[in-house]
Amino acid sequence: MDDCIFCKIIKGAIPAEKIYEDDEVVAFLDIKPVNFGHTLVIPKKHYEKMESTPDDTLSAVFTNAKKLIKVIKESMSADFVALSVVGIDVPHFHIHLIPRYFNDNMPVFWPRKEYREGEKEMIAEKIKKAL
Amino acid sequence: MDDCIFCKIIKGAIPAEKIYEDDEVVAFLDIKPVNFGHTLVIPKKHYEKMESTPDDTLSAVFTNAKKLIKVIKESMSADFVALSVVGIDVPHFHIHLIPRYFNDNMPVFWPRKEYREGEKEMIAEKIKKAL
Repeated sequence: MDDCIFCKIIKGAIPAEKIYEDDEVVAFLDIKPVNFGHTLVIPKKHYEKMESTPDDTLSAVFTNAKKLIKVIKESMSADFVALSVVGIDVPHFHIHLIPRYFNDNMPVFWPRKEYREGEKEMIAEKIKKAL
Repeated sequence: MDDCIFCKIIKGAIPAEKIYEDDEVVAFLDIKPVNFGHTLVIPKKHYEKMESTPDDTLSAVFTNAKKLIKVIKESMSADFVALSVVGIDVPHFHIHLIPRYFNDNMPVFWPRKEYREGEKEMIAEKIKKAL
């Protein structure tokens, strides 16, 4: 896509610190990292969202992300690497890999809610109906 | 694994609100949801982390997650569904799918840092060396 910032990075029209590249996938540093070493993994072909990415491309992106998790954890001496897909920022499917540290002052997870009696079953039914 | 809570859910030894099940994958509601409808997608075979999960199993889990994102977004009337893998909670590989709302009082992302001059290049080199 002509006006897609990630497509421009793939073509080399915009510079980026590339970590990894093959026929299907590119990984590069996010320029505004949550922590240093924050990496984006994207398919070379433009798909707007994870939901619109074909299964084989999706698999290529996630199996490469798996390898990169190990490499980023080791090289950045991270306590763990969090993977996330948000889907409402740049409209070219991408995975965030974020090196995390137990002392980085960000919670590991958001606060949790409690289901009231019967609510869990009701919500499960609602989701299953949409399947 | 005998003492794994997710393996017990798969076997039916612990109850759970299952959303989806096939030969390789199970999806069920997290009992302490970040938002209602928060779903976990797991492989039936026990692998401790994403990093130790074989590529074909990984692909099955993520391609099913892709379908479930659509279904959860629609059925829970979510603004978007965030996917995340944390890897330091229950030691049976699992993906979180969290229905999110623009007014749910959680930031979409953590605060971002800035690289100083030359730092981005240095960190990219460090990660590439570990590849």
